Amino acid sequence: MDSYLIQVNGCGDHAPVLDVHLKTNGNSLPLGKVKGRKPRWAVRASEMSKRTFNPVRNIVDSMKVEPNPKKSMISLSLGDPTVFGNLPTNDEVTRAVKEVLDSGRYNGYAPSIGYQSCREAVAAYYSCPEAPLEAQVPAGCSQAIELALAVLANPGQNILVPRPGFSLYKTLALSMGIEVKLYNLLPEKAWEIDLKHLESLVDEKTACLIVNNPSNPCGSVFSKSHLQKILAVASRQCVPILADEIYGNMVFADCKYEPIATLSTKVPILSCGGLAKRWLVPGWRMGWILIHDRRDIFGNEIRDGLVRLSQRILGPCTIVQGALERILHRTPPEFYHNTLSILKSNADLCYAALSAIPGLQPVRPAGAMYLMVGIEMEHFPEFENDVEFTERLISEQSVFCLPATCFEYPNFFRVVITVPEEMILEACSRIQEFCEMHYQGAEGAQDLECDK
Amino acid sequence: MDSYLIQVNGCGDHAPVLDVHLKTNGNSLPLGKVKGRKPRWAVRASEMSKRTFNPVRNIVDSMKVEPNPKKSMISLSLGDPTVFGNLPTNDEVTRAVKEVLDSGRYNGYAPSIGYQSCREAVAAYYSCPEAPLEAQVPAGCSQAIELALAVLANPGQNILVPRPGFSLYKTLALSMGIEVKLYNLLPEKAWEIDLKHLESLVDEKTACLIVNNPSNPCGSVFSKSHLQKILAVASRQCVPILADEIYGNMVFADCKYEPIATLSTKVPILSCGGLAKRWLVPGWRMGWILIHDRRDIFGNEIRDGLVRLSQRILGPCTIVQGALERILHRTPPEFYHNTLSILKSNADLCYAALSAIPGLQPVRPAGAMYLMVGIEMEHFPEFENDVEFTERLISEQSVFCLPATCFEYPNFFRVVITVPEEMILEACSRIQEFCEMHYQGAEGAQDLECDK
Repeated sequence: MDSYLIQVNGCGDHAPVLDVHLKTNGNSLPLGKVKGRKPRWAVRASEMSKRTFNPVRNIVDSMKVEPNPKKSMISLSLGDPTVFGNLPTNDEVTRAVKEVLDSGRYNGYAPSIGYQSCREAVAAYYSCPEAPLEAQVPAGCSQAIELALAVLANPGQNILVPRPGFSLYKTLALSMGIEVKLYNLLPEKAWEIDLKHLESLVDEKTACLIVNNPSNPCGSVFSKSHLQKILAVASRQCVPILADEIYGNMVFADCKYEPIATLSTKVPILSCGGLAKRWLVPGWRMGWILIHDRRDIFGNEIRDGLVRLSQRILGPCTIVQGALERILHRTPPEFYHNTLSILKSNADLCYAALSAIPGLQPVRPAGAMYLMVGIEMEHFPEFENDVEFTERLISEQSVFCLPATCFEYPNFFRVVITVPEEMILEACSRIQEFCEMHYQGAEGAQDLECDK
Repeated sequence: MDSYLIQVNGCGDHAPVLDVHLKTNGNSLPLGKVKGRKPRWAVRASEMSKRTFNPVRNIVDSMKVEPNPKKSMISLSLGDPTVFGNLPTNDEVTRAVKEVLDSGRYNGYAPSIGYQSCREAVAAYYSCPEAPLEAQVPAGCSQAIELALAVLANPGQNILVPRPGFSLYKTLALSMGIEVKLYNLLPEKAWEIDLKHLESLVDEKTACLIVNNPSNPCGSVFSKSHLQKILAVASRQCVPILADEIYGNMVFADCKYEPIATLSTKVPILSCGGLAKRWLVPGWRMGWILIHDRRDIFGNEIRDGLVRLSQRILGPCTIVQGALERILHRTPPEFYHNTLSILKSNADLCYAALSAIPGLQPVRPAGAMYLMVGIEMEHFPEFENDVEFTERLISEQSVFCLPATCFEYPNFFRVVITVPEEMILEACSRIQEFCEMHYQGAEGAQDLECDK
C-alpha cells in the first residue's frame, strides 16, 4: 500500500518564527479569565479513531514482504476482480453511466437514501413474491453494512460474526464500541455454520447475526436447508439477521444461490449488496440495503433509524445511482455467465493443483472469488503459523496469499481466483515448489523434534 | 422530500403462519440453557440513530407547506445549484469522467484515503509556498467534515460552531455525542465572528473550532484581517481549526478569498472542500481534507487517525477520483468566472429588490450562493417567528425560503441565488406583495397592541 501523505512544499522549515497575536480592539479576554483553561497545544486523535483498525492491514503491514527478485510477483491477495484487466465490466455498464453524464440530469444532490427510481429499481430487481423488499442505497456495500450495524447495535451490545470471516465486520464493530462474538464455520462441512456453537453465543446483548453467503474468504455457498436451519436459530433466539450478500448470484453452475430473505417467514433481515462484485466495478461505491420485514418486527423504528443515519453521509455518487436501473436491466446474461465460467474454471484448476500438494488441504469453493487452503502445520515445522508460511512464500516464490489469520482463522491461507489462468497455474506451481522444499513427512517432523 | 420506502409486493399479507422450526440433529440448545435470555422480538433502533437528525428536516417537515394553487411554486430553499439547469457543469468535467470510464482503469478499489495521484493533484492545486498541504479524499465534503470531526473530538468534548451556520455540523456532532457550542456571527459587520463571544466559549473540553468561509447560509466572505484575528484566538487558546471551505474561491469580483491555511503560521488546520459547489456537481460526492500543520502539532497521531477512520468507508467513487486531476487542470477559467458573474448579478438583483421592501433587512453577500434576510418581526405581528413567516409565504405566494431557525438564527430567512434571474425577480416581487400585505407600520403595530 502506498503512503498517504503527500508533502508538497517542504516540511515546515519555512514557518516564520512569529505567530500572529493581534489585539482585537479590546475584544480579547485576558487569558486568566478563560475558565481556568491553560492553553497548550495537545491535539489528540479521538478514541474512535484509535479503536478503528483493519486487522488485515495490521497483519499485512507487519509482514516482512521482500519478494524474490528473481521471480515476478504474483499477488493472489486482493479481493478486487479488476486488478489484472482480465475481467472487465460490461460495456452496457459504462454506457449507462455515460448516458447519465450526457443527460446532465444527475449532477445534483439525491435524497440521502438515494433516488426513488434507484431504490425502486433495486427493490424490484431482488424482490420475489415470497420476499417483498424495500431498498435504500448507501455508498457501497461497506457503507450498507455500516448503516445496518449502526442502526441495529448500541455500544456494549454484541454481534455474531463468522470465523473465518470478512474483517470489515470487526473493524466497524470495534470502531463503534460493539463487541464481536465469533461463531465457527466448519471446513469439513463445506464451511457450514456450527449451529450449536452459534446458538450458544446468543445472549441478551446480541444485536444481530451476520450471515455472509456466498462467503468471503471461503467461497462457500449455503444450501437451502442450511439457511433454513440458520433462520430457525435466529427465529428461536429472536435475533435479526444482517445478510452480507455482496456475492449474491455469484455461484457456480452446479449449485444454487438462495437469498436468505426468500426463505424467512418471520426473522427480519437487512440484506446488504451492491454492484461491486457481480458487475466488476468495486470502486464505484454503489451499494444497497434490502429490508425484509414481513412480520413488521423492524417496524418504523429501524426504517426511520436508517433514514436518519443516511443523512450523515448523503449516499453514493449520483451518476452511478442514475445509471443503476439501466445497469440492472441492460447487462446481458452472458456477461454474468462468462464471469462465472472463468471463476469456476480457475477454481477447478487451483483446487486440483493445490490438492495434489502434500501438506495442503484446499476446500473446494462453490462461488464468490476465493478458495481457502488449510496448511498442515505439523508438516511445516519451520513455520510457526500461517503468517510465517505466507511471508516465506513471498520471499522465496514471490507469491502473495493472505494468511487466514486476517480472517481470524489461523493455519489457512486465502487464494483469490479472479486472476488470469496462466497466473493461477504459475502460482500453484510455485506453491508446489515451496511446499516440496519445506514439507517434512512424519519422520522428518520427528527428527526435528529429536534435534531439540 | 419523497418517502423512502418502496413496498414492492404487498405488505406482508402473504406471510405463511408457520415459521421454520427445524431440529438440527441435536445441535439445538434447550431454550432454558441460553443464559437466562427470554427470546422475544424487540428490535430497537440504536441510540446513535435516534441521536442523528437533521434540524432542517425537522423544521421543514413540520411546516404546513401547501402552496397557493394559483401560483407556480418557486423554491429558493435548496443549496443545490443544479436544480434549474441554468448552471450546468463544464463539458471538460464530464469529458474527464467519460475518458476515465473508457479507460477501464478506474473500476477497482482505490486506497481508502484515495488514489495517490488524486491526493497529489488536490494537494498541489491548493498548496502555496506559505501553506504546504497534504490531502486525503473522502466521499464528498460532508464526509470530509465527518472524518475531521471524528478524528478531532471524543464524545463529551465540544466544538465551536457558527450561528447562523450549516446544520450538518450539529447533525454530525450530536450523532457522535459531541457537544455543540454556538458562537455568534454579526450581521451588522457583514457576518464577521463575534470574537469575544467565540473566545469566551472555549474551555478545556473544546476539541476544535469550525470556521465556514465563504459562509452558508450568509454568503459572507471574511477579510484577511478578520481571518488573522480568528487565528489569533485559536492560537491563544490552542484550539485546532476545522475549516469548511467548500465555497472556497466562490467570491464575487470585488473581494478576495483567502484560504485560512495560507494565513496560519501555527494553528493546525483541517480544511474540507470538494467538487460540489465550484464545479457544480454536488451529487458526485467528491471531497477532500487538506491537512495544514506546519508546526507538526497534529503530528502522526491525527494523520494516522484519519487513515484509520477512512478504512471504515473506503472513499469516493473511483471514476470521479480518476477524473479529478483532469477536472482541476482542464476546467477553463471562464467557467468559474461565468458562474460567479451569474451569482453576483442574481445577488445584486435580489439584494436591491429586497432592500426596497419595508420590514426586510437583507445582508449583502460577497460570495457562495446565499443571501440572508432579516425580518423585522415587530412589523409583522401576525407571525410569531420566521418559521410562520416563511410558511405563509408558501401558502400565499408559493415562494419557499428556508427559515433561518434551520441555522439556529431566528427572524431571518435564507434565499438561494442560483436560480434563474427571472425566477429571482418573480420571487422578489411576490415577497414584496406578501410583505406589503402583512406589514404593520409603527402605528399599525401599536393598534394591534391596543386591540389585545
